[in-house]
Amino acid sequence: MAVGFVNEPDDYVVDAAQGLVLSHPSVAMNSSPLFLHRAKKTSGKVALVSGGGTGHEPLHASFIGEGMLDAAVPGAIFSSPTARQVVEATRAVATERGVLHIVKNYTGDLLNFSIAAEICADDGVEVQRVVVDDDLATDLPGSKVGRRGTGATLTVEKICGALAEQGADLATIRRQGEAVAESSRSMALCLDACTHPLSGKKSFELAEGEVEFGVGIHGERGRAKIAHGSSRELVAELLRPLVEALALSRGDGVLALINGLGGTHLTEQYIVARDAHQYLEACGVTVCRTLTGPYVTALDMSGVSITLTKATKDMVALWDAPVRTPGLTW
Amino acid sequence: MAVGFVNEPDDYVVDAAQGLVLSHPSVAMNSSPLFLHRAKKTSGKVALVSGGGTGHEPLHASFIGEGMLDAAVPGAIFSSPTARQVVEATRAVATERGVLHIVKNYTGDLLNFSIAAEICADDGVEVQRVVVDDDLATDLPGSKVGRRGTGATLTVEKICGALAEQGADLATIRRQGEAVAESSRSMALCLDACTHPLSGKKSFELAEGEVEFGVGIHGERGRAKIAHGSSRELVAELLRPLVEALALSRGDGVLALINGLGGTHLTEQYIVARDAHQYLEACGVTVCRTLTGPYVTALDMSGVSITLTKATKDMVALWDAPVRTPGLTW
Repeated sequence: MAVGFVNEPDDYVVDAAQGLVLSHPSVAMNSSPLFLHRAKKTSGKVALVSGGGTGHEPLHASFIGEGMLDAAVPGAIFSSPTARQVVEATRAVATERGVLHIVKNYTGDLLNFSIAAEICADDGVEVQRVVVDDDLATDLPGSKVGRRGTGATLTVEKICGALAEQGADLATIRRQGEAVAESSRSMALCLDACTHPLSGKKSFELAEGEVEFGVGIHGERGRAKIAHGSSRELVAELLRPLVEALALSRGDGVLALINGLGGTHLTEQYIVARDAHQYLEACGVTVCRTLTGPYVTALDMSGVSITLTKATKDMVALWDAPVRTPGLTW
Repeated sequence: MAVGFVNEPDDYVVDAAQGLVLSHPSVAMNSSPLFLHRAKKTSGKVALVSGGGTGHEPLHASFIGEGMLDAAVPGAIFSSPTARQVVEATRAVATERGVLHIVKNYTGDLLNFSIAAEICADDGVEVQRVVVDDDLATDLPGSKVGRRGTGATLTVEKICGALAEQGADLATIRRQGEAVAESSRSMALCLDACTHPLSGKKSFELAEGEVEFGVGIHGERGRAKIAHGSSRELVAELLRPLVEALALSRGDGVLALINGLGGTHLTEQYIVARDAHQYLEACGVTVCRTLTGPYVTALDMSGVSITLTKATKDMVALWDAPVRTPGLTW
């Protein structure tokens, strides 16, 4: 049973893509296979392609534009795009400077982007990739799959996008993207699970007063339940492990993404931003830049994630560079 | 019982204001009485002040900046700001060109902005105002209070803001604002009511498969219940009365705001945008510009509103003029 604004369930992703393009003529779409790209192809620069399951909007398609992505490939809800979609998107935007794939660390995404890169290489398109794996909740000793990719994907897309716009070469952009991914960690918590818009099913149930700590962006459960404390207390739970994992100490600077997971109101994302600033200041950590809003969502999940990137001066300058996309502009 | 990210309930609004300012150094705040304003005062232009209850973010405070507001005054959740807040905000940003108040049509807002305007006039500050009253659901014959102000507030703030930046005088800006308000109508529907973040109470209950048609942005019930059809059907329910009320006919052009009320995911707002375009195209109406996103919210209400403005060429040009605010930038 569909719960939201849906026509034919099979058209969910393509209907939304059409709405994006109609709202933002700077973005165009290819219907079969489905991908979105800049309406005006930019030549002479490395092209950036990202993608992943639907349900995380504005990530990725709303980040197409000057200073960020050249194309984005949406899969079905919470499912990776196909290799064929990635191949055609890559071909459509490829330049002689090469193409960078920005891929969140999930088995399906890795596999399909990897197959696509091989096919494109056979065509003579040079493809390199950055894998984003920032989710500290999945940083488990002995894990074969590694950490999931979540909020830092935006940070990597923004910084690599700025560098590409400045004319950097493919290897330089890839290395900078890897450095950003390596310097970034995220932690999320959930006050109420998301509802699948086509089945109407909640991804899990929480008792009143319970908070799921360490959730992913696909409705995955967390790694612990904690009590529903004040915003200040919840923010401390998120930041304590992040500060430790990034070995942040007095004098370090960070980029902070205070990210709504979909169902939490912007007002409360701002309350979280304030509490995060206070916590980090007390640690002597400088918050160089803060981006607050619902940028990397998990459908209508109620909750927030915080992504910190231990930032070099170069990263801050690239973060500040102009960006003009439907979902992020400055 | 607080349900979200809250510290002291009494600090809800001020904590969020601090988070906004920490995230966006282009906006500053005054603590007592509470209002927000551009960090750098702009002289030589008419100043724009708006405000209203908290819970509609990014409206109003996130629309402070070049090309839009000079100051915004947040009240408590779903409550008007006090006259004292409005007076101090008006004084802080007033220039010799005068101040425009943009006020949503609610009794409390009208009263407090009106008292504030009188006090400021006594100080020698010229204040004029535009009342926004676009909500077609409350267009009832014989009503003394008139239509509520909802989504068109953004349109009025954007267009008046652009005109002020171009150096227009107070009366010209007010007249243009009134023309935009008069040419704008909105209609909203709700799939699930909002929850008050401090009491934990839902504003009303809906049975499964029911849609509340004609809701307001303060958790008010609608004027009818309809069945939960496809997005296309729901969009037709919203647009049919809007097209009629604005007497839109073949060849007319509109600005369209496809607005998420808080809990509906951006993906589905895009589906609604697509269906709205198809409906309007079939009527021969040109959608000149479309803004799609959660801009005028009702806490975490699940649902959308559509605002149409029958647009002159001047309105479209002013809509396109540059804007740089935390919530809207192009």
